[in-house]
Amino acid sequence: MALSGGIGGAKLALGLYRILPPDTLTVLANTGDDFTHLGLAISPDLDTLLYTLSGNDNPELGWGRRGETWTFMAALEALGGETWFRLGDGDLATHVERTRRLAAGESRSAIIDAFRRRLGIRARLLPASDDPVRTRLHVKNKNVIRGLDPRISEPPGDGRVKPGHDETVTGRDIEDGWLDFQDYFVRLRCEPAIRGLEFAGAAAARPHPDIIAALADPALRAVVICPSNPFISIDPILAVPGLREALRACRAPVVAVSPIVGGQAVKGPTAKMMAELGLPVDAATPARHYRDVLRVYVADEADAAAVADLDLPVVLTRTLMQSLADREALARTVLAAADRIRAAAFPGAG
Amino acid sequence: MALSGGIGGAKLALGLYRILPPDTLTVLANTGDDFTHLGLAISPDLDTLLYTLSGNDNPELGWGRRGETWTFMAALEALGGETWFRLGDGDLATHVERTRRLAAGESRSAIIDAFRRRLGIRARLLPASDDPVRTRLHVKNKNVIRGLDPRISEPPGDGRVKPGHDETVTGRDIEDGWLDFQDYFVRLRCEPAIRGLEFAGAAAARPHPDIIAALADPALRAVVICPSNPFISIDPILAVPGLREALRACRAPVVAVSPIVGGQAVKGPTAKMMAELGLPVDAATPARHYRDVLRVYVADEADAAAVADLDLPVVLTRTLMQSLADREALARTVLAAADRIRAAAFPGAG
Repeated sequence: MALSGGIGGAKLALGLYRILPPDTLTVLANTGDDFTHLGLAISPDLDTLLYTLSGNDNPELGWGRRGETWTFMAALEALGGETWFRLGDGDLATHVERTRRLAAGESRSAIIDAFRRRLGIRARLLPASDDPVRTRLHVKNKNVIRGLDPRISEPPGDGRVKPGHDETVTGRDIEDGWLDFQDYFVRLRCEPAIRGLEFAGAAAARPHPDIIAALADPALRAVVICPSNPFISIDPILAVPGLREALRACRAPVVAVSPIVGGQAVKGPTAKMMAELGLPVDAATPARHYRDVLRVYVADEADAAAVADLDLPVVLTRTLMQSLADREALARTVLAAADRIRAAAFPGAG
Repeated sequence: MALSGGIGGAKLALGLYRILPPDTLTVLANTGDDFTHLGLAISPDLDTLLYTLSGNDNPELGWGRRGETWTFMAALEALGGETWFRLGDGDLATHVERTRRLAAGESRSAIIDAFRRRLGIRARLLPASDDPVRTRLHVKNKNVIRGLDPRISEPPGDGRVKPGHDETVTGRDIEDGWLDFQDYFVRLRCEPAIRGLEFAGAAAARPHPDIIAALADPALRAVVICPSNPFISIDPILAVPGLREALRACRAPVVAVSPIVGGQAVKGPTAKMMAELGLPVDAATPARHYRDVLRVYVADEADAAAVADLDLPVVLTRTLMQSLADREALARTVLAAADRIRAAAFPGAG
């Protein structure tokens, strides 16, 4: 079993998928990024996993679908619609069909399961919960943040943000405030300094029963926390009541892979968030963050010094995943680390 | 003012738009074809007018948008979604944005008005009513119709129907029944024989107030019933309570253009429906159908004999609109016919 956010986590999930026998891997996806946009139910991390594991991911963009076209966005802009969140034409099919099925009463987990089967994926994809969990960020100086109102301005940038718009700073009162995830992540490109996070709805969310059953299964080999952002990709999963306890009670070793390489985040705001939350910006911080569930940690060779004082087994390896072979090699290292822990804990258990 | 359905009517609407001063034409669109598909609010005739008058129509397909792409449909098919109604990537933007705005409380008329302004159209587009009016068809042998269940079969065909699927005839009980418009028109390619039609919701629908005001305006020059299908394109407009009365009371002449040329329909099921409804299949039938509101009729030269016995003024001309010049020429002929009627009724009024 793997716990994953979007892009970075999906790389290791793909490595695990490729080296494991068919129909043995389950990937728990973060749903804290889910939101409704233009009336469509969008689950970015589930969809990144769907596209990545089915070979439909877009290697040029680093997100979205292979062979994507953008006719919809151009037509929407001509009509005066909101274009700050870029939706490709093929990607839209996932959101339109998900929205239709949700309206017909299907669960998010049943929908992604139908999708992954249609696309030939022989691994399960599961949202941590079918109940809504929404990541929100407590940020400084909310009211002077650029581009909060899409009619006023949109930040230029990369990823899903549409480039080419002027930036505007509005001079209203300065105060702290809460931002929805995609406002923070896409529209504002993670620029606001965060003070904290919350996972709205988590307290009432029920974990998907198949997750609890899988974690209690003595045949489970390992639980891999992928190199995703601990605060916005993994914590929303762990915030679902019962999941953290099930991980602690789980007989299979929980192994995390550091999202920090050489003291920096490979992608995204992980290091920036650590600093803003007052945590050391190094590879030891994620391990300490997961310490209550973690049995072994996989960090990059470049971070040997940073993780030297951790009070759990650490495996040092090359963690950057540039090629497909990198993904598979890291997956093998991670499983081998888990297998050694399990063999030590249950000698002779195989 | 013009009353129009989709493709055929939009051709004459474009001709009128091009020869009239800006901001003087109002086009009333049929909304009997409107439906919700994949959770999206689709208004085919309003959108055909939107695309045609803004120069975004697709001359190769004869429907949809210029430069359209089909990535969405391919991705939707891969996910197992419904593909019998073909939605282009750019066309989707209209439906997604309309659906979003409807959910936010805007009216269909306000939405199409925003769209046409964004696309630079200096004519008003108005649904006959903001209330739902849905054309339904009473057909023979409903249960042996091919392809009623999209999971069983889809008819091959042209237009919006996706080609390449096997046809299946299901052998259930034979009885008459009602079909929703798009099931009849697109999925079943108008193949069922009809016994009658109804316009669900029409009795409770209120005409858009600007229509009633425009019809009462003494400055109104003419009301043009475009060469659309009388039964499924114009009747749903006239079914809105008050519209037929306002047309009868209107000082401006009502002029209709025959959708029958040389005894046949230019496009679509007009002639087939006339026969099934027991009406003569000729150019006189539409004039008789509109007789209570009509002041002058424009028919094709090829149908001179068929319309010779009509008890109202008839103008014979070339009504086939192949080129842009054809559209403008017919528009000029139609307006001139109306102007002559008005001059005769109100000599000296200009």
